[in-house]
Amino acid sequence: MFTNTHPQNTSKDATLAKKFTAVRERTVSMCKTLSDADATAQSMPDASPAKWHLAHTSWFFEEFIIAPELGESARFNPAYAYLFNSYYDAVGPRHLRNKRGLLTRPSLEEIYAYRNHVNTHMHALIQQGKVPLDILELGLAHEEQHQELFYTDILHLFAQNPLKPAFTEFPAQPDSSAATTPPLSWTQFEPATPQIGHSGDGFAFDCETPLHPALTPAFKLANRNVTNAEWIDFIEAGGYANSKYWLSDGFATKTQNEWHAPLYWEKKDNAWWTMTLGGFAPVELDAPVCHISFYEADAYACWAGARLPTEAEWEHAAKQTGATIPSSSPPLKPLAQTGDTLTGMFENVWEWTASAFLPYPGFQINDGAIGEYNGKFMSGQMVLRGGSCGTSPAHTRSTYRNFFHPDKRWQFSGLRLAKDIT
Amino acid sequence: MFTNTHPQNTSKDATLAKKFTAVRERTVSMCKTLSDADATAQSMPDASPAKWHLAHTSWFFEEFIIAPELGESARFNPAYAYLFNSYYDAVGPRHLRNKRGLLTRPSLEEIYAYRNHVNTHMHALIQQGKVPLDILELGLAHEEQHQELFYTDILHLFAQNPLKPAFTEFPAQPDSSAATTPPLSWTQFEPATPQIGHSGDGFAFDCETPLHPALTPAFKLANRNVTNAEWIDFIEAGGYANSKYWLSDGFATKTQNEWHAPLYWEKKDNAWWTMTLGGFAPVELDAPVCHISFYEADAYACWAGARLPTEAEWEHAAKQTGATIPSSSPPLKPLAQTGDTLTGMFENVWEWTASAFLPYPGFQINDGAIGEYNGKFMSGQMVLRGGSCGTSPAHTRSTYRNFFHPDKRWQFSGLRLAKDIT
Amino acid sequence: MFTNTHPQNTSKDATLAKKFTAVRERTVSMCKTLSDADATAQSMPDASPAKWHLAHTSWFFEEFIIAPELGESARFNPAYAYLFNSYYDAVGPRHLRNKRGLLTRPSLEEIYAYRNHVNTHMHALIQQGKVPLDILELGLAHEEQHQELFYTDILHLFAQNPLKPAFTEFPAQPDSSAATTPPLSWTQFEPATPQIGHSGDGFAFDCETPLHPALTPAFKLANRNVTNAEWIDFIEAGGYANSKYWLSDGFATKTQNEWHAPLYWEKKDNAWWTMTLGGFAPVELDAPVCHISFYEADAYACWAGARLPTEAEWEHAAKQTGATIPSSSPPLKPLAQTGDTLTGMFENVWEWTASAFLPYPGFQINDGAIGEYNGKFMSGQMVLRGGSCGTSPAHTRSTYRNFFHPDKRWQFSGLRLAKDIT
Amino acid sequence: MFTNTHPQNTSKDATLAKKFTAVRERTVSMCKTLSDADATAQSMPDASPAKWHLAHTSWFFEEFIIAPELGESARFNPAYAYLFNSYYDAVGPRHLRNKRGLLTRPSLEEIYAYRNHVNTHMHALIQQGKVPLDILELGLAHEEQHQELFYTDILHLFAQNPLKPAFTEFPAQPDSSAATTPPLSWTQFEPATPQIGHSGDGFAFDCETPLHPALTPAFKLANRNVTNAEWIDFIEAGGYANSKYWLSDGFATKTQNEWHAPLYWEKKDNAWWTMTLGGFAPVELDAPVCHISFYEADAYACWAGARLPTEAEWEHAAKQTGATIPSSSPPLKPLAQTGDTLTGMFENVWEWTASAFLPYPGFQINDGAIGEYNGKFMSGQMVLRGGSCGTSPAHTRSTYRNFFHPDKRWQFSGLRLAKDIT
Repeated sequence: MFTNTHPQNTSKDATLAKKFTAVRERTVSMCKTLSDADATAQSMPDASPAKWHLAHTSWFFEEFIIAPELGESARFNPAYAYLFNSYYDAVGPRHLRNKRGLLTRPSLEEIYAYRNHVNTHMHALIQQGKVPLDILELGLAHEEQHQELFYTDILHLFAQNPLKPAFTEFPAQPDSSAATTPPLSWTQFEPATPQIGHSGDGFAFDCETPLHPALTPAFKLANRNVTNAEWIDFIEAGGYANSKYWLSDGFATKTQNEWHAPLYWEKKDNAWWTMTLGGFAPVELDAPVCHISFYEADAYACWAGARLPTEAEWEHAAKQTGATIPSSSPPLKPLAQTGDTLTGMFENVWEWTASAFLPYPGFQINDGAIGEYNGKFMSGQMVLRGGSCGTSPAHTRSTYRNFFHPDKRWQFSGLRLAKDIT
Repeated sequence: MFTNTHPQNTSKDATLAKKFTAVRERTVSMCKTLSDADATAQSMPDASPAKWHLAHTSWFFEEFIIAPELGESARFNPAYAYLFNSYYDAVGPRHLRNKRGLLTRPSLEEIYAYRNHVNTHMHALIQQGKVPLDILELGLAHEEQHQELFYTDILHLFAQNPLKPAFTEFPAQPDSSAATTPPLSWTQFEPATPQIGHSGDGFAFDCETPLHPALTPAFKLANRNVTNAEWIDFIEAGGYANSKYWLSDGFATKTQNEWHAPLYWEKKDNAWWTMTLGGFAPVELDAPVCHISFYEADAYACWAGARLPTEAEWEHAAKQTGATIPSSSPPLKPLAQTGDTLTGMFENVWEWTASAFLPYPGFQINDGAIGEYNGKFMSGQMVLRGGSCGTSPAHTRSTYRNFFHPDKRWQFSGLRLAKDIT
Repeated sequence: MFTNTHPQNTSKDATLAKKFTAVRERTVSMCKTLSDADATAQSMPDASPAKWHLAHTSWFFEEFIIAPELGESARFNPAYAYLFNSYYDAVGPRHLRNKRGLLTRPSLEEIYAYRNHVNTHMHALIQQGKVPLDILELGLAHEEQHQELFYTDILHLFAQNPLKPAFTEFPAQPDSSAATTPPLSWTQFEPATPQIGHSGDGFAFDCETPLHPALTPAFKLANRNVTNAEWIDFIEAGGYANSKYWLSDGFATKTQNEWHAPLYWEKKDNAWWTMTLGGFAPVELDAPVCHISFYEADAYACWAGARLPTEAEWEHAAKQTGATIPSSSPPLKPLAQTGDTLTGMFENVWEWTASAFLPYPGFQINDGAIGEYNGKFMSGQMVLRGGSCGTSPAHTRSTYRNFFHPDKRWQFSGLRLAKDIT
Repeated sequence: MFTNTHPQNTSKDATLAKKFTAVRERTVSMCKTLSDADATAQSMPDASPAKWHLAHTSWFFEEFIIAPELGESARFNPAYAYLFNSYYDAVGPRHLRNKRGLLTRPSLEEIYAYRNHVNTHMHALIQQGKVPLDILELGLAHEEQHQELFYTDILHLFAQNPLKPAFTEFPAQPDSSAATTPPLSWTQFEPATPQIGHSGDGFAFDCETPLHPALTPAFKLANRNVTNAEWIDFIEAGGYANSKYWLSDGFATKTQNEWHAPLYWEKKDNAWWTMTLGGFAPVELDAPVCHISFYEADAYACWAGARLPTEAEWEHAAKQTGATIPSSSPPLKPLAQTGDTLTGMFENVWEWTASAFLPYPGFQINDGAIGEYNGKFMSGQMVLRGGSCGTSPAHTRSTYRNFFHPDKRWQFSGLRLAKDIT
């Protein structure tokens, strides 16, 4: 399926070898507080157990690099090709995805042994120059995606436990106690025809291509995300009860699921608390609102007399303003934002856009199993842009298209308002 | 909610008065073969009983024109404001929509009396120049929409009956026995920046506005719809079984619902039959395939090495080629197409596009209840363009945006292929 | 399947011929206020449309008497054997039962024609002495069962209509305005070994056989049914909220379905109203409570420090006290009871017992389709004894075993308390 | 709720103290092959995680003995009263039962510490004579029940794992390779009025009381259970496909769940295999059939021209024949039976009876939380008698009433045929 080109670009080679080690080690280090049981449980069909994330990201390298190069006998355990293959759903028993949490065997220890087995083979193949760099790069980006999913899935799991255990202590942050959230302000953009999508330099997922022109009207974009304090205003103004702010599907979803606040929020002695990776804690008023669905984001924007930006507007703005992508470890909870101009576009919360996740003009699906990468998800989902408090270092970029169904709330998802200029 | 302007434009006035009579009479004449029971039953939550269509379209005029002008006492029956108000769902008991088929009272006869009551008031108000023309126009377009829904809903109901009764005899058509379906051919379009949307002349729904530029790449569009014969090729090639042609949500939907062919198709003695408004009949090989979901349309296009057009491409092509909108009564079943160039764009079947139903740049929702018209449905649905064998005369236009969820099949929905030019 | 014996007993012959006419006419006369739509709709899977009751009871005679005697060509319409065969579920498409309400054709008029066709054939066969009397008798008892189901099903249908239409006017009753409900009193019974079940004289359903001894301990039985006034006490005492009175399955069912009162009850301006065959009306405090499930009956008895009687106790008491079975038309709503001793055992409401519907010792299922009559329902259901305000004249007897699942409430079901004597 | 009587009967005291140690140790020893993850997962709502069994059985002693005697401060962790209280369902959040598998914390190790904490307190209280013996005895019987549930739940969990891991090695059995299953033979019983239920000596659950006379007709009972070989005959004769053998609810359940064989059976290379506590293994033809529902047992009996015994018949026979209750560790899989006369009544498989689980005449529910023990489950369930290959040593007796809903299959459940003598 892939032409096994022996790459000449030894500098890229060395960089990727180093990155392979770093990404693989980071995944394991993220799990260090987990017990075997923590790593096994699955809290809902959308989420996967930690063991599955650990194994599936290894399976990717085994399936697409090691087995083609070294043969089937190089696999750690032939059964794993079945157990940890996410693509499997389409071709066989379809209920397995809901039952990942029942795989108490193999144990977490065996999964770590599997990872080591894969790492050993990969290091050898990389040294021998036998690794297709494009697949290696894709595999690492794939593993970084699962790193963030790991965080959101484990948060969801721990939130189901009445003991509300803390997964971790939050990394120390620079003291921002004196900081206050700046008032909402707007950056204006003229009508334009920006080039949207990936330009060809560096790695990007298939769905970010091809580069193409898009029309953006005159619009303005908020300097920061909507905060928890503002969201509480929305709640107290009856925002969840009034259908006029809501999309029809959104209001039905909200009503059926009895949503009255973001996911994880609970009112306790008249104050809002929420579940975080550090345990159960009071809602921080200055921090960006998080764990909201597209439907809620859209309703809030409507209530606020604004709208969500399209993904072209968002990307155009991000490229214009030169916002920077964090290269260090993420803070694991949204932090209060301080800038007066466009700020925090790649941090804190993924920002729901008004755009459905659809193919760009001229988009082509590659042949083969890896070709299924993103194209098959291009219906029914909405695009989120930026990055979050759980995104892997240097993983994202201005062209990055994250996407989820409009009712999903367990991701680190929030919003930034936009407005027409008329 | 509406300024009750007394219109000056007496020519438009007269035209709309005439149209009011015509549309209202057409609705009733469409129902003439129905029994009280036929008009009461509801075959699924998506469909409405004929009585409900008859009453709800009358309620619109009563609610937005008669009651504001003549007071509540002018209503036929106060309870009807509750029973036949589709907007009601958001503010009250939410299960009613599924239970419309249990309203055996009022009877069909009473509903006709309701219609007459509304007509009498409306005629008087029109004569007195007391009718806001924009609402009148909207009410008539609304009723025309329900005319087509009536056909698709009654077809669905009769298809559930093992006796498979015929709803009607098909209108006579010009003899086309000698015609054969032309081979697939393509019309090419250069990259362009057409103005998309409603230009301001004549009536349009809110979602067709505002007029705005859009970029269309170089592309080509098929001369005709995909036919039943071609669809059978797809079935026989295993198209329904192979996940690689399908969107992920589509394959899951197909599998769960056990779709193996378009809605209503059944294999009988090795030949395909289908349910039509004229009863159970053999599938006509040369006619456009109908009653397929977006998911199936997309999978077919993928299998055929093509894609669906975007709605901007479709509208651009329709405006370029000057395709004409039928002004006579629809044939009630898709007819074989004969042209070598772009043909049948407003007839036979609504054509699924690759576009999600989203607001145009600068779209504004009007205040008030009528403001809810289309905006609240702008998530999770896909746009269909053109018109069908069940569309009311002169109802559609090149900017018309029809929309349904991607899994819906009971509409007269088919497809026309497009391709990139690279 | 049945030996077509030509009966000698001409007196029984004549009686059954007369009864055939009476029962068949009564069914039609019960429907005289129904429109075609009323007769078509199905309000829930447990209920059947009136048209279905009318047709299915005719199908019984066609299937088991006319067709065997006169051949298939004597059928009114071969398709009816499929449409109106309740046994069909086991051997074919299983969803049909839920979709009976979609059979808008055949019309009510056609169903009446079907009934006449069957009647004509039956009268001729009866005159010629060609009708197996046991099947005829079973067919008439079967039709009488459906007469009561017709009432409960049409009540359920009309209760779904927000207009809450009246099905009928109640038959005039002797003036009982001066009557007051007597206080609860008890009739005592010594330990005994009564013969339970059908003794061989007259008609009985298979499940009432064989006659067998049963042990009944010392117990006492209430003089009358629990009244609506008493039920309101139970509600106001928190009876629906306190799990300690409830069976585990019952409490779960109650909670899931949000039961807070009997079926059809609604609180309006601080008073309880209910839906009746005569329309929406205030709850009559002295009348027996009706439309309660077994779970509710059991919880009430527990709250009241009593229990439900077993069916053997009930039958023993009924035989001892010589309670009489009504032979005139039923009142169609439960009436206040006036006796100081055991009263109303065959009227007003079916009485839930503590007995599961199980085979009597030595019970045998007959061969053939009619053999399926009751045996296949002998799991998961509870026995009710007596008769109700909707039971056909002279239809019931002291050995009669009615049965429904413990969560069903749409029948005319109530309760009578029993207690151990210790 | 319990009078804290200081017991005089020091011999019973000593016996129970010894038994306390034995039962508590046995539970832990049963779990020795489990990982933390194995002990946490929950494979379906009916099943509980091993950790939950370990904790809940300890909670019983803490809740009903330690806390009343030593105060709330003697609890290991106050939150456990909430987490491990099965009675909790009725008074609070109702979904918790389905989410037991998400309690990855506390860990298995912490649960063992909890057990030790409870054991220490209990030993001290027993020594001080401060333990109500009736509650202690109930607590031990309760833990023995959970020991068997532990086996059936862990088997169900491991069966969901595509790797089909073995939970244990089977205990060695006396060589029975020469044994062959004896032909079916029958023991006859005359009509009788045996005393049924618990006589007052030794421990029994509330539902086994009071002792009361019951009538048993003449009947005969099979010498042994139905075997796997016989069940395969039933399958091959189309037993699962023919509705005439099935109860109506049973056929619907079977069809909806696509049952074609007992739970865990899979056909592999034309032979039947099944999941066992020792892993995936060929079905042993001579062994009793196991993991069947009541519906299947009843259908088999009907197909075989027999019926299931009532529980009174079963108990009468067991008492007559003096069948013995195993006092040693169970074999963990059903073993082939060899006797010519009534044999294996307390081993191998629980035997479905024809009796619904209902209160015996004069049954009283005790006050208080322990009073809820069995009474609240007395609807919708069927009685099983005897004991199984997973039952704790000496746990059962001839009056023991096990009960499950008629569709449950994950218990060690089988059948023994009975017949009327006419």
